Amino acid sequence: MAAKKKTARKAKPKNAFYAQSGGVTAVINASACGVIETARQHKDKIGKVYAGRNGIIGALTEDLIDTSKESAAAIKALRHTPAGAFGSCRYKLKSLEENLREYERLIEVFEAHNIGYFFYNGGGDSADTCYKVSQLSKKMGYPIQAIHVPKTVDNDLPITDNCPGFGSVAKYIAVSTREASFDVASMAKTSTKVFIVEVMGRHAGWIAAAGGLASTEDTPIPIVILFPEVEFDEKKFLARVEDMVNKHGYCTVVVSEGVRWPDGRFLADTGLKDAFGHAQLGGAATVIAGMVQRELGLKNHWAVADYLQRAARHIASKTDVDMAYAMGKAAVQFALKGHNSIMPTVERLSSKPFKWKVGMAPLSKVANVEKMMPKSFITRDGYGITNKCREYLEPLIKGEDYPPYKNGLPKYVRLKNLPVAKKLPKFELS
Amino acid sequence: MAAKKKTARKAKPKNAFYAQSGGVTAVINASACGVIETARQHKDKIGKVYAGRNGIIGALTEDLIDTSKESAAAIKALRHTPAGAFGSCRYKLKSLEENLREYERLIEVFEAHNIGYFFYNGGGDSADTCYKVSQLSKKMGYPIQAIHVPKTVDNDLPITDNCPGFGSVAKYIAVSTREASFDVASMAKTSTKVFIVEVMGRHAGWIAAAGGLASTEDTPIPIVILFPEVEFDEKKFLARVEDMVNKHGYCTVVVSEGVRWPDGRFLADTGLKDAFGHAQLGGAATVIAGMVQRELGLKNHWAVADYLQRAARHIASKTDVDMAYAMGKAAVQFALKGHNSIMPTVERLSSKPFKWKVGMAPLSKVANVEKMMPKSFITRDGYGITNKCREYLEPLIKGEDYPPYKNGLPKYVRLKNLPVAKKLPKFELS
Repeated sequence: MAAKKKTARKAKPKNAFYAQSGGVTAVINASACGVIETARQHKDKIGKVYAGRNGIIGALTEDLIDTSKESAAAIKALRHTPAGAFGSCRYKLKSLEENLREYERLIEVFEAHNIGYFFYNGGGDSADTCYKVSQLSKKMGYPIQAIHVPKTVDNDLPITDNCPGFGSVAKYIAVSTREASFDVASMAKTSTKVFIVEVMGRHAGWIAAAGGLASTEDTPIPIVILFPEVEFDEKKFLARVEDMVNKHGYCTVVVSEGVRWPDGRFLADTGLKDAFGHAQLGGAATVIAGMVQRELGLKNHWAVADYLQRAARHIASKTDVDMAYAMGKAAVQFALKGHNSIMPTVERLSSKPFKWKVGMAPLSKVANVEKMMPKSFITRDGYGITNKCREYLEPLIKGEDYPPYKNGLPKYVRLKNLPVAKKLPKFELS
Repeated sequence: MAAKKKTARKAKPKNAFYAQSGGVTAVINASACGVIETARQHKDKIGKVYAGRNGIIGALTEDLIDTSKESAAAIKALRHTPAGAFGSCRYKLKSLEENLREYERLIEVFEAHNIGYFFYNGGGDSADTCYKVSQLSKKMGYPIQAIHVPKTVDNDLPITDNCPGFGSVAKYIAVSTREASFDVASMAKTSTKVFIVEVMGRHAGWIAAAGGLASTEDTPIPIVILFPEVEFDEKKFLARVEDMVNKHGYCTVVVSEGVRWPDGRFLADTGLKDAFGHAQLGGAATVIAGMVQRELGLKNHWAVADYLQRAARHIASKTDVDMAYAMGKAAVQFALKGHNSIMPTVERLSSKPFKWKVGMAPLSKVANVEKMMPKSFITRDGYGITNKCREYLEPLIKGEDYPPYKNGLPKYVRLKNLPVAKKLPKFELS
């Protein structure tokens, strides 16, 4: 009887844990969909997929969601639903030395719930956490296969060609920049001559660069891009805007939230900081707008896209959705093959025609590495994108993947998110 | 010979003049498409359609565009192209007493180019101009059929059920509010708890009301709307936001650019004015954001949609596009039936199911009348929309009408806009 029980236990497949981390995107749920749907196809090897309620905090507080309670239709609908269906968080685990008890708690929770797979869906910070968990779990004698699923609108993860989430925000910015530019162009004779749109991207100008895609050979648009990579030069910038308006009658300025004055301060510095210690930005557009009005006397309008840009599932890039799903799917497939401490990547095979395949990167090479825009992607004058940049970006915004609609509004799913019964004592977050 | 020549002259059909006025929309070109395509079907009665380059200024300066030089495909593409294809303007003609010479100049230009139809596509100000032209032309002995084609995102024209342009901006705001709310909801546990989006609508809260559509029975969202119709009460507003966050963990604030302090100042007053003498707004969101941070200590994010909302043809409402086209088409049909000094309208027959037909209103009853939101559309507490409002708004955002795409970007048409040879001496604008 005892022997039989032991055999039964041994046969019981390990469960998986999945969590969303950091700022959400229009397609992070497509990765969740890829993870869960693929896991469900391998019930002999993966038991249940538990999700962390509000990201990694859900693991620390043992607040797990039982995704097996969700219907196949609900999980499928994740593919077209923006934001984080299980909740995400900005909660960075400190170093192993500083806060070993949180890492140990993670392992305890995983062990208590028979979790053998850790799928962590996020950016640089979560890649780091994922890496540490895989290291520590070995030491603690409870091996976890820790796999990072790439996600970030900032497109700053290394090795992978791009980060799911970026292509859709890039498409949103490219489309919106084109549309608003058509608007300004038609009003410029007697009204607004300069339109300014502020976009996300704290350290890297990937999203700002996407604004440059709005202008193409068959639809040229005078666009001035302000990259965080390029030190802001007020005089030179204003001369450029004036020149554009003189030549074309109007101009559109795409300004990254991360643009800085020569002294290093953000144009939009508000003094606030988020949980990761990053400066909380917003308002570069108003600074530029005031400058254009004051110094050039040009009537202008400004927009700040903020969350609208990263939540805009209605105009998601099909390429991006496909990649997000593929990363989630590959994470599970790699886990089933026994891989650990890795991240599936997008490997670009060619740009024209666009071909890519799923690759793999060791987390040791991903954690704490930030991918910046190559200098060769920014034109010499500092205000535009090069053909090389365009060749890189264009495939990422290709294709539309519209969600279903009901009464004029997109039908986004809300899951039941039922909790898994707790087994451990309460844990206080540090 | 002389008699024959006279007969030939008599048989030559009058040309039409079409101009776009005021702030452009996602669908004003759909109305242009309706005007031009319908006119082209009646070449026996309408000669050429000339468009004003940059709106009415094009008529005053005799800067006419010959739309007959555009291919059928180009004109068809106007239906899915946002902004003003011929250029629009913010140029208000003064009263007949103050500036008779501009009105007389219009008639002179019309006469010089054998123009018998004046289609003016705009809001309240252009309805007024259109009305005056029809009055004056009679007096001057050169009768013009002046027909106003309704357009304005502000939805403030009287008699017509709604104004083409509004339905699409309403859809954009409803969709974006839903998407950003999903984003905030998933981050609220450890990050942003309040999201603020600023929307257009100087005097009337129609667009702000559309934010309320984001929340439905199957997808409830805690939304606080700040209408220009409701005097801003800081204490009450903050209590409401705090209550929402306590109950739901997060909340979304939709704030109209037209919201005012009890002393009448706009929340966002910058002191600038546009050509119509309207205060130039922008920045109510930053005022609200600062308040929520300072008084409630709640982390928040804010967006200002500005032109993005009214240019967003990519997410236009099909109902709106259809109506915009229908108004342009009806304008020509009414002209052919001999009507003058009128505006085609949308007449709602029923809301559930939504049925409407084309109606007609005399310009004497349209000019200088601003339609406000009925009090019954705003909930008693001042922060939400009633079921009556929802019943009115819902049909207007229904249906999607996606533009074609090329390489991930919408393919919007740019016309050749070839000029018509001038026949008159130069005219200086006042």
